[in-house]
Amino acid sequence: MENKQKITGIVVEYNPLHNGHIYHIEQARSITQCDVLIAVMSPNFVQRGEPAFINKWTRTQYALEWGVDLVLELPTPYTIQSAETFATQAVNILAMAQIDTLVYGSETGIIANEPERDIDHQKLEAGLSYAKAMSSHQQGPNDILGKYYIKACQKHNITPIAIKRTNSYHSLELDESIASATAIRHQFNLGNDTSGYTPIDLLNNQTHHLNDYETLIKYSLLASNPKDLENISLVSEGIQNLLISNAHLNLEALIESCTSKRYTRSRIQRTLINILLNQSKDIPEIQQFRVLGMREAGQQHLRYLRKQDVSYTTHFKDYQFKDIEYRATSIYSLPYSDAYQKEQLNMEKSAIIRVPNK
Amino acid sequence: MENKQKITGIVVEYNPLHNGHIYHIEQARSITQCDVLIAVMSPNFVQRGEPAFINKWTRTQYALEWGVDLVLELPTPYTIQSAETFATQAVNILAMAQIDTLVYGSETGIIANEPERDIDHQKLEAGLSYAKAMSSHQQGPNDILGKYYIKACQKHNITPIAIKRTNSYHSLELDESIASATAIRHQFNLGNDTSGYTPIDLLNNQTHHLNDYETLIKYSLLASNPKDLENISLVSEGIQNLLISNAHLNLEALIESCTSKRYTRSRIQRTLINILLNQSKDIPEIQQFRVLGMREAGQQHLRYLRKQDVSYTTHFKDYQFKDIEYRATSIYSLPYSDAYQKEQLNMEKSAIIRVPNK
Repeated sequence: MENKQKITGIVVEYNPLHNGHIYHIEQARSITQCDVLIAVMSPNFVQRGEPAFINKWTRTQYALEWGVDLVLELPTPYTIQSAETFATQAVNILAMAQIDTLVYGSETGIIANEPERDIDHQKLEAGLSYAKAMSSHQQGPNDILGKYYIKACQKHNITPIAIKRTNSYHSLELDESIASATAIRHQFNLGNDTSGYTPIDLLNNQTHHLNDYETLIKYSLLASNPKDLENISLVSEGIQNLLISNAHLNLEALIESCTSKRYTRSRIQRTLINILLNQSKDIPEIQQFRVLGMREAGQQHLRYLRKQDVSYTTHFKDYQFKDIEYRATSIYSLPYSDAYQKEQLNMEKSAIIRVPNK
Repeated sequence: MENKQKITGIVVEYNPLHNGHIYHIEQARSITQCDVLIAVMSPNFVQRGEPAFINKWTRTQYALEWGVDLVLELPTPYTIQSAETFATQAVNILAMAQIDTLVYGSETGIIANEPERDIDHQKLEAGLSYAKAMSSHQQGPNDILGKYYIKACQKHNITPIAIKRTNSYHSLELDESIASATAIRHQFNLGNDTSGYTPIDLLNNQTHHLNDYETLIKYSLLASNPKDLENISLVSEGIQNLLISNAHLNLEALIESCTSKRYTRSRIQRTLINILLNQSKDIPEIQQFRVLGMREAGQQHLRYLRKQDVSYTTHFKDYQFKDIEYRATSIYSLPYSDAYQKEQLNMEKSAIIRVPNK
């Protein structure tokens, strides 16, 4: 039995979901004319080394409502990692779900690095010439990810397609109808109205902020032995000694004091989150993927994959990373109310989000 | 050179110092006619498995002002232990400081247990007959400690003297001029005036409450592997699994749910504090004692001890338990303001309290 359907994958964080992401979903569907659109998503912590602004269940719900057919979980230990590990493992999961095409956002709309120039199946559907793209835009974080997406796609025989991002990743302003997730979080935290930029009702959802974890992060350093921290993912070259010796500072000063050319701010934050989650270097290889939510088309595709003996689960208790994800969600919800934590842990153990096709 | 001075020791927590403690100090001095009164004191966590209500420096200050000549630190890992370990190690330190007599409080004024009946050097200075004491009072926590004090005194050839406590340990009421520390904490937390019962200005000192550590305690469980917790002091028989599986409850419910005939409330609290402090089972033997504060008479006695090659320190950096105490103080002050934590850590590294003789 052969699958004649066109299956497209995207790698997302939706931190939070905004108009640019919706454009990305629409573009991915229209460019590839896919039957099924699958997103692999960062769960409750994100790649930049922060708690997700909104919990993974709400983000799954919105992803499905705005055009994704199937949302899969990128395991937390592979999310709070370097761009290379994040991208490689995300594509790995999408390959398990048998996508034929990956659509990703890019600041330039092209991949500028030497090794990728010879990928002739890369399609520049957004219609930019190489020179024009290069002259008008700088490389951004998504271009760095793009390099690794393409490399991973080559391995799995998946077609990568870049879509040009319509806004600047680094801007903190809300000056277009499409603002970056960073800008939306920033403006929301300033108390400004963000409702024109994201469909999520941020005021009526629990938002999570790195600063809410300040005491826990400092505690995780102060209570630790430097020797034990050597086993934590991303801890290397004695960075834990610097972190511990600055753990009496406030969080911003702690991060600042440990940031250097060698250890970027993101790297320090990711390291702190790995310590916070007590995530050891010994991370299991991904053997199965977990479904966070689906629409009808996604469910049909899952049935197809089941027949192909693809290993996945919709049941938390069967999930390979269940202890790690339970811990991550426990800690993610700990700074907030008991009721919220209880709800999040209950969802972790049993939830799967279902949204009818439009 | 022989020391002709009379040296008396007491074991204290002063949680907080109150009129009953002042009576105890006065009685200890007048009964023994001592030249030097030495207290060994619980530092920032106390034996019942709680943060000390007031930090150790303020408590040292008040102890010296109210009649103690020398305050020594009971190392934290030996404080948050069973009554037997606490009492044995406290007397051990006092023996290093060469006391000849130990004066301790007792609910009955006597020691009722069989093994201690034959201790004929025990002096009942408070003037109660055995029968009278037994008929009018029940054994209390101080009598349980008393058993172990006497046992330790025998080993070190120290004379133990019991003083009858004038109030009930368990009462939560402030109905006499002498109220228990428990009653004072309880009434203070209810917002009631406790100034008639303790000389400490509780309103103008940072008070510490177990509930302020709730999130940290829950985190210390949620972030831990059951296997790793086996190495923590007091963790035995798989109790960590029960603690972890109830770590989503609020702190009171968590403690309650793990309390049983086998695991008393105090035992559970002590276990949680050991986990909070990441205190391993591998606790070094006490090789030296640390001085927290002194009056003139105490300082003279220290000079005498130095000549006897007794090992003690007034410098934190030379202290055998410095890493453990620094960690304990870091965590003890973490739930409060950055300024308070900074002050406490600075004092930890350099403070020694000096009070002139009256």
